Amino acid sequence: MRLLQEIWCLEDALREVSRAIIHRSSYKEVPLLESVGRVVAEDILASEPVPHFVRSTMDGYAVRARTTFGASEAMPAMLTLGGAGVYASAPVLTGGAVSDEFDAVVMLEYAELLEDGLLLVSRPVAVGENIMSVGEDVPVNQALVRRGQKLSIRDIAVLSALGHAQVRVRDFKVAVMSSGDEIVPITVVPAIGQVRDINSSLVMGLIRDMGFHADFLGIITDDADLLVSKLVIALATYDAVIISGGSSAGSYDYTARAMQRVGSPGVITHGLSIKPGKPTVLGVAGGKLMIGLPGHPLSCALTAHVVAAPLLATAAEALIVKRAHFELPLLLPIASVPGRRDIVPVKITQGGICPLFAKSAAIRVLADADGFIEINEQCEGLHAGERVKVEVWR
Amino acid sequence: MRLLQEIWCLEDALREVSRAIIHRSSYKEVPLLESVGRVVAEDILASEPVPHFVRSTMDGYAVRARTTFGASEAMPAMLTLGGAGVYASAPVLTGGAVSDEFDAVVMLEYAELLEDGLLLVSRPVAVGENIMSVGEDVPVNQALVRRGQKLSIRDIAVLSALGHAQVRVRDFKVAVMSSGDEIVPITVVPAIGQVRDINSSLVMGLIRDMGFHADFLGIITDDADLLVSKLVIALATYDAVIISGGSSAGSYDYTARAMQRVGSPGVITHGLSIKPGKPTVLGVAGGKLMIGLPGHPLSCALTAHVVAAPLLATAAEALIVKRAHFELPLLLPIASVPGRRDIVPVKITQGGICPLFAKSAAIRVLADADGFIEINEQCEGLHAGERVKVEVWR
Repeated sequence: MRLLQEIWCLEDALREVSRAIIHRSSYKEVPLLESVGRVVAEDILASEPVPHFVRSTMDGYAVRARTTFGASEAMPAMLTLGGAGVYASAPVLTGGAVSDEFDAVVMLEYAELLEDGLLLVSRPVAVGENIMSVGEDVPVNQALVRRGQKLSIRDIAVLSALGHAQVRVRDFKVAVMSSGDEIVPITVVPAIGQVRDINSSLVMGLIRDMGFHADFLGIITDDADLLVSKLVIALATYDAVIISGGSSAGSYDYTARAMQRVGSPGVITHGLSIKPGKPTVLGVAGGKLMIGLPGHPLSCALTAHVVAAPLLATAAEALIVKRAHFELPLLLPIASVPGRRDIVPVKITQGGICPLFAKSAAIRVLADADGFIEINEQCEGLHAGERVKVEVWR
Repeated sequence: MRLLQEIWCLEDALREVSRAIIHRSSYKEVPLLESVGRVVAEDILASEPVPHFVRSTMDGYAVRARTTFGASEAMPAMLTLGGAGVYASAPVLTGGAVSDEFDAVVMLEYAELLEDGLLLVSRPVAVGENIMSVGEDVPVNQALVRRGQKLSIRDIAVLSALGHAQVRVRDFKVAVMSSGDEIVPITVVPAIGQVRDINSSLVMGLIRDMGFHADFLGIITDDADLLVSKLVIALATYDAVIISGGSSAGSYDYTARAMQRVGSPGVITHGLSIKPGKPTVLGVAGGKLMIGLPGHPLSCALTAHVVAAPLLATAAEALIVKRAHFELPLLLPIASVPGRRDIVPVKITQGGICPLFAKSAAIRVLADADGFIEINEQCEGLHAGERVKVEVWR
């Protein structure tokens, strides 16, 4: 077992653990609206074209475009309403079907219908003007959503247009536990030396926001055998396990030792060159991901974002869509240490990014921060005024 | 009734309708984790300090700071482990309680414990060093969350730290309907001239994302009496009603006329100087908000964001927290017309913002867009290269 002696850089650790994971891809079918925010289990292609008929995009008259060429207010084209000849036309509303013999729509305001059924058109239209052809919006077989994609409200709209009332989404289940003798349930008034279990809510919230299922398996006291038996139960039922450590110094070792006992390869990395997050434990048993996060809520939250989230996405074969990178100027300088990645909570203000410095045990800064920035291993610090990429909280 | 003849600018319409709304503030209690994304119904203040005891932020020894002043490796301070005198010290783990008689913690690496219980400290600590005092993180009575605020995962963490296992959230209920003879349920294969009901999913998704409850009340054919009776039922049970119009030209009139018949003041504005969204109908009956959105999905989505969302927030007394404004350069010029606000869907790419031009009936662009930009009434258009504020989709 590699204990804290061997410190890994984040990229190496993520790659090594990802290699040991066996992807989990069970799915379930949910009603369309409930699939918002979930991870779709398969590519969904358009089985029909949209629109499925030639559709007018304006209120007006369907015509043959060439019958209007050269038309002007002084010299309107003269068509007949209805009829079957070349100069025929048909009234049509926005969204209405344009029948085969027509190839354009004249807007209402450029047509004048006389009492005898004569239609005067005062402006020419080009072929295809004011109509949407079959499949122009979505051609048949175009991918509507991609396997592994987290569905947005707009994706749901597109799926509804194609008649998908049910959607297959990933059914990836994560067991969440807290460990530490000093941790009490949130409903309990903590005695001196005790703290409420903040991390479980935090970690479960993040997992659910990723579109996965999270169950809370309880607070485990610092008892190696108990932790092992809980881990065994969790691994039997869930696709991944996340344990947040207590804040007491010994608890990381409990987590790492328990991970080592429940299966092969067990602990893969114990100790990351990130701050906060150094005591993070990463392991795999029977192909399933096990993560031990630091106990301090702020450390736990930041590590959950930069370490747990990408590994959970890998395990569930979810696509991580990098959001657009927002770069903003830093308002205060930040010192860092080469060889270590710093993750700094920040507040976004009118003028730029303000780093929030806090003791790692602080929880208030969690609510105050809009997101975080990363200072990579090669960097000795950032100057005030430098433009920096912000990762906005999930 | 002000029909489309009288076109209102968006600000005036929002202000006028907001004035006529009676705020709705019923609430319900939900388990903490289910309150993520919901709107909290009351200010919640810290009933206890965090931490509630003096806490060590390091593994080490609790000491009286002044006993270490002047200490160095060559001349360590000599303390006793345990004991009750001035030179007493006590071992403490990170997160552990520091008792009253001590005022600082010496880190483990700067202390050497000799066999006879003598503790050598090789570096001085200041008063308060490596400890967190009572309430340093969250003082008693500090606001944890504000009434009307939409709760984030981090807010939930902070609430859990203070023992809030249940949270009172706004119980604001919106009835959603589609209208139009040509609209069929998404499970039906549409005939020529028919389209599936895309807007209901879209609008319900948005309402739920705002933290409110949304129910689908069905597709209403273009029948004024039917629409009136449905509206009456909806207004009796729900806090607000949203009807998306069919794409047929006549349907907006049905919506406006029905709104006019169900209560006072009825229709407030019918016709907004925005594109898309011109035929939007806004009304109030018995203090409850009624909104008629355009039928084209893209128009419906954009109007839902810029018109419906702020009005729903007002009705529910929800705080709209403006996200940080991300300004990016525009990659293509956009023409606009003074006196009209244009809402343009955009894609955010590496280089900047790319406007997505689409016929208003298009649905594909909904999924492709990352958000939208607004071109205000005073502006004749935007140049390529101009930095523009992007509103990222909810």
